[in-house]
Amino acid sequence: MKFTMERATLLKAVAQAQSVVERRNTIPILANVLIEAEGDTVMFRATDLDIEVVDRADAKVERAGSTTVAAVTLNEIVRKLPDGALVTLTEDGNKGRLSIEAGRSNFSLATLPKDDFPVMASSDYETSFTCPAPVLRRLFDKSKFAISTEETRYYLNGVYMHVADSDGGKVLRCVATDGHRLARIDADIPEGASGMPGVIVPRKTVGELRKLLDDDEMQIEVSVSETKVRFATPNLTLTSKVIDGTFPDYSRVIPAGNTRKLEVDASEFAKAVDRVATVSSERSRAVKLSLDEDRLVLSVNAPDSGAATEELAVAYGDERLEIGFNAKYLLEIASQVDRENAVFMFNSSGDPTLMREGNDTSAVYVVMPMRV
Amino acid sequence: MKFTMERATLLKAVAQAQSVVERRNTIPILANVLIEAEGDTVMFRATDLDIEVVDRADAKVERAGSTTVAAVTLNEIVRKLPDGALVTLTEDGNKGRLSIEAGRSNFSLATLPKDDFPVMASSDYETSFTCPAPVLRRLFDKSKFAISTEETRYYLNGVYMHVADSDGGKVLRCVATDGHRLARIDADIPEGASGMPGVIVPRKTVGELRKLLDDDEMQIEVSVSETKVRFATPNLTLTSKVIDGTFPDYSRVIPAGNTRKLEVDASEFAKAVDRVATVSSERSRAVKLSLDEDRLVLSVNAPDSGAATEELAVAYGDERLEIGFNAKYLLEIASQVDRENAVFMFNSSGDPTLMREGNDTSAVYVVMPMRV
Repeated sequence: MKFTMERATLLKAVAQAQSVVERRNTIPILANVLIEAEGDTVMFRATDLDIEVVDRADAKVERAGSTTVAAVTLNEIVRKLPDGALVTLTEDGNKGRLSIEAGRSNFSLATLPKDDFPVMASSDYETSFTCPAPVLRRLFDKSKFAISTEETRYYLNGVYMHVADSDGGKVLRCVATDGHRLARIDADIPEGASGMPGVIVPRKTVGELRKLLDDDEMQIEVSVSETKVRFATPNLTLTSKVIDGTFPDYSRVIPAGNTRKLEVDASEFAKAVDRVATVSSERSRAVKLSLDEDRLVLSVNAPDSGAATEELAVAYGDERLEIGFNAKYLLEIASQVDRENAVFMFNSSGDPTLMREGNDTSAVYVVMPMRV
Repeated sequence: MKFTMERATLLKAVAQAQSVVERRNTIPILANVLIEAEGDTVMFRATDLDIEVVDRADAKVERAGSTTVAAVTLNEIVRKLPDGALVTLTEDGNKGRLSIEAGRSNFSLATLPKDDFPVMASSDYETSFTCPAPVLRRLFDKSKFAISTEETRYYLNGVYMHVADSDGGKVLRCVATDGHRLARIDADIPEGASGMPGVIVPRKTVGELRKLLDDDEMQIEVSVSETKVRFATPNLTLTSKVIDGTFPDYSRVIPAGNTRKLEVDASEFAKAVDRVATVSSERSRAVKLSLDEDRLVLSVNAPDSGAATEELAVAYGDERLEIGFNAKYLLEIASQVDRENAVFMFNSSGDPTLMREGNDTSAVYVVMPMRV
């Protein structure tokens, strides 16, 4: 194998592939990236056995071939090479070394046989559709904060992507919850998606996927089967196993009968919650919301260290209400709001509260109260 | 006590004071900042028993007085208040609470009696002099990387600031070493400094001092006694105990007879060292320098993972030499060089090597070789 690439192109491909590699693993080959050169293209493939990333880049291939080397080391080397350098990678099958040359720099890295590399089995995808990057970005960005980290509830350790009914039509929906809060985000259903099986996309996959979604113009090809999901751009394919479990029936958790409506400037609200929470150093800080005619008082009382209150002018016309929430949950939910106003719908101080962005029902959040 | 200050002024004063507070300590009062309001001035004082910082700020004082509150919490609260806010701090002696008001935000923090606060005993300083901030900045910035972290050699856990003879005249000198490398930085001696006792300024003090030295126009008043050192600007006083020990006679470590001279572009050299060191993941990575007529080859050989070589065009006219160094030490020393060229003076592959910046002898570094 021998090929030459510009440093920036090589860096981008290797960086994307290596990020999926687990830093601490006991199987040496999993620390490696599989490099395959053929025609005018080089493929960089990395996996942690659950996720596989394949990056394609154009290169001047002098001799086709393939090998595997330590992904993190290769990435570090390429990153440190001078901008604009031309990099040549050469491997002679029997030497067990990959050589990397750029100008007067010369590196050789130990290789492992390419046949030992665990290429992910291909899958028959039942559903394929194309979705603009900004749509997927919104679906996952607004839901991922609610993913559970409890390993015993493994079926909550991801975002549930599925097709749902809404207002008589179908939508593409992402839901995440950890039992304390829930996010339900809808988007117009892309053509060809309606028969898609619901899948739980694991947390790590959501993180890796995010790197594909920065380009507003990009169209993402999404393929879904019962066991796998694949997101692809022309240069990069991210394939992931999905979580083998049943996502609970979240619809019962979303309160339909909450009638007490509070409308508040989302950014002012978030800042105020952040400030009053400062006086308590406990992990589960409770913030009390005291609602009265067009007036909201946020307060925290930590007997040992101090107390804080903050008043906000809001739109609220119902009867007096006092309700407590975990400060972190309130902050995370408030920071999802892109519009000016957040709308809270309360029932009583013991019932789950619903939050949405203005009058938009395509992004709905639920948060459980705390006793204060 | 009652006074009002603009948020930015208050934040600056509190932030500087609280940074000296140890996050984990078992004596509650040490987590607090002592606030003393009188006349038109408020003083914020914090200590870890070794270092004391006193910050003065102008304020509208309505009622003189003093109290202590948690430094970190106060800093967090003030930081989160909106820009431009006017902040009023009020304390009624018998309530045990400090109230902080700004607009519609209201906080109250638990206080501890001001009499329990350990104000550092004042000292008779034998020597006082004034030194421009950039001069002190250079002295400490260029030496601190060599401070030892070995607690058993506590007398090396700081920068040795003292007066020394150089070329028949006196200089203000800072030296630090950990036994593997050494930095010796000289500056013109300020008026009044020549009788100063040599003091070992502890690592943490060097870090706190650095924050006083960013303003190029600032004159720093330095006071030194056998046991303490004090650095003061009009608004801030940093007092520190010095390390109670004898700094070793470093002059014997600095080689005088090294004759083999290598001149190299400092930035190119540092980048090349960084690159070749990538292939080895060991903590003490050895880089081999192979010198020949106007040619330097850097190489690293890590049998398990790979190898790297890099060639640099340099000025070198002596006989062939091979010498190894810890990559981290080489990098740290090379990154001290402000001028274009670094000059290395070698003896043999087993002897300490001297490095200086061009022909400037006011900053000299020594590094021990490693067997490669």
